[in-house]
Amino acid sequence: MKTTAVQKPLGKGRPKAQAGENKRERILDSAVYLFAKHGVSETTVAQIAKKSGVTSAMVHYYFKNWDGLLDTVMAERIVPKIKYVWDGIEKINSVPEILTVFIDRFFTIMEEEPLFPELWNREIFNVGGNLRERFINYYPVKKLQAVQQIFVQAQKQGQINPHLQATHIIVSAIGLIIFPLIAHDLLSSLLKLSAIDKEKYKQHVKSLIEKGLYT
Amino acid sequence: MKTTAVQKPLGKGRPKAQAGENKRERILDSAVYLFAKHGVSETTVAQIAKKSGVTSAMVHYYFKNWDGLLDTVMAERIVPKIKYVWDGIEKINSVPEILTVFIDRFFTIMEEEPLFPELWNREIFNVGGNLRERFINYYPVKKLQAVQQIFVQAQKQGQINPHLQATHIIVSAIGLIIFPLIAHDLLSSLLKLSAIDKEKYKQHVKSLIEKGLYT
Repeated sequence: MKTTAVQKPLGKGRPKAQAGENKRERILDSAVYLFAKHGVSETTVAQIAKKSGVTSAMVHYYFKNWDGLLDTVMAERIVPKIKYVWDGIEKINSVPEILTVFIDRFFTIMEEEPLFPELWNREIFNVGGNLRERFINYYPVKKLQAVQQIFVQAQKQGQINPHLQATHIIVSAIGLIIFPLIAHDLLSSLLKLSAIDKEKYKQHVKSLIEKGLYT
Repeated sequence: MKTTAVQKPLGKGRPKAQAGENKRERILDSAVYLFAKHGVSETTVAQIAKKSGVTSAMVHYYFKNWDGLLDTVMAERIVPKIKYVWDGIEKINSVPEILTVFIDRFFTIMEEEPLFPELWNREIFNVGGNLRERFINYYPVKKLQAVQQIFVQAQKQGQINPHLQATHIIVSAIGLIIFPLIAHDLLSSLLKLSAIDKEKYKQHVKSLIEKGLYT
């Protein structure tokens, strides 16, 4: 905790100034919010500072520079979620169990961080996304490849629907989960649906994949 | 054809000046490209003119203003593709046939316009997308709702897997198709896969949905 940080009085209506660690977290919250809503390139240090109720100098104090801020957003806000999703998954010795665990955990992180679909879409999936290189560097590629190999082997042994591309099963699960979250507002307008019932939609995705998977 | 348009000499290495209609199409091509790659808000008339080998005045001549250009991109480049996908689909009297036709046609438009996944993602699906309102205005919502109703009825009659959300089957198909195209570069880096084999992936999507669909 950087409790030596100078505490500036905050504006009217803002919560009382708290310990440095809290300020630092508030700055990260603001950064994630603005990056998701407007994009990294359209966000300035001044905007992040304003939204956090701190000065721009304070942002620089905690994160040195823009790259330091992006590194920290990735390391503290995104990487722990990715690690949670993939933890030990390559050691599960059953294809349906791998998928159940993966789908459950992926839904969990998207629920815990409702800004993720928009943030990931804008800055990770999009060509030219500002967090993409960092994401690739941190992604547990070996676990992903191990899981793909489990699927490829299971398909060779006749356990998986031969019309599927075994290498694309995880990608399909991600697409099924994340697309309705990304396009949520659009789909609400077009389909006249209220908010997606995530619990029902999770069962939908699981059932589609489970049934689709087998020969 | 606006053959009365003044033809300005083009720069070295550029194709010879052609008839007005051709220029107009070149401007639309450039707009779609720049909107997909950099976004509508990050694109200027001058950039579109430069990429098309015409003057900014020529862009204004054909499209009056920025809204006129966006209207034309939607009306001439996107709407005909959406119409193709949905043409007569609500009259097909079989759930599996509706899905086969929808998936085939959706793959077709994404193949015909390789910039669509990026363009749609950035400017239609994303919150704040610059083409979203126009897309909603043009979308054949009644056909979409009619198809949803066919699915809902089929599920009530026990023909469709009861664990699915009947209203989200089309959304699932779109997510399955478009996500790997949107995230293509990222997936190539992570999965060390070469370009997606679209024919194989189409079979994958169809099989997953067909098998997942039934009770």
